[in-house]
Amino acid sequence: MTTEESRVQVGEVIEGWAKAIGAKDVEGAMAYFAPDVLSFDLAPPLQHMGREVIRKGLKEWFLTWDGPISLEIRDLRVTADGDVAFCTSLQRMSGTKTDGEKPNLWVRATMGLEKIEGTWRIAHEHTSTPFYMDGSNKAALDLKP
Amino acid sequence: MTTEESRVQVGEVIEGWAKAIGAKDVEGAMAYFAPDVLSFDLAPPLQHMGREVIRKGLKEWFLTWDGPISLEIRDLRVTADGDVAFCTSLQRMSGTKTDGEKPNLWVRATMGLEKIEGTWRIAHEHTSTPFYMDGSNKAALDLKP
Repeated sequence: MTTEESRVQVGEVIEGWAKAIGAKDVEGAMAYFAPDVLSFDLAPPLQHMGREVIRKGLKEWFLTWDGPISLEIRDLRVTADGDVAFCTSLQRMSGTKTDGEKPNLWVRATMGLEKIEGTWRIAHEHTSTPFYMDGSNKAALDLKP
Repeated sequence: MTTEESRVQVGEVIEGWAKAIGAKDVEGAMAYFAPDVLSFDLAPPLQHMGREVIRKGLKEWFLTWDGPISLEIRDLRVTADGDVAFCTSLQRMSGTKTDGEKPNLWVRATMGLEKIEGTWRIAHEHTSTPFYMDGSNKAALDLKP
């Protein structure tokens, strides 16, 4: 039931958002979010609610990267009807942190979108890795799709 | 734009699914899933695709619990239009494992739903904890909402 138009439009939102994140463009990324956005992020706490919290988080997070962030998006699946959509993807995040560390990990990403005044906005984002249930409880940062 | 009817119906799906999980009722839980369900779960791998993979995973996971699983759902937010919905919640999972361990953790849960032949089905589930970015990379199992 997902129309080709919705699929393309939501795909463009995800692509544009990823490009802004990659360029560490805070306001560029913020433009994609709905006012009451709820984020379940890689780092604690459990949830981040609202644009101001997310803007602050992005600013701080971008400062920990030296140069651009590479965000490769794979297996994007979009499901939409009318003014609501959700989409899933796997994302490879890599680059160089200011402390010299070079993260290179795959994460799972789910986004919930709402079309507000004719424009798709990200109302919810959930990004995570699984964790190893072997007693170590370590985040599984070495998985590949 | 989310109708009260959709909100109630999706809420009933989440409640019914949680009750089945709590009772370790494999087929009861499976009844809520869409045929091509995609799961981003707490444990590796990155993704689990399709009903058979999820049925096998549930069976194995239920065997690791001694007695019922307590699944408390909080802050359920439903966004729906027509035949597509997504919902978010925080879930406290607790109980006793067969090895005597007593997990008691809060997780974030996102679900994507589709109304198929008049019935809401879970087409996507994403359950996770954040992880500590303090060098330990440990799953944050001690967070509270």
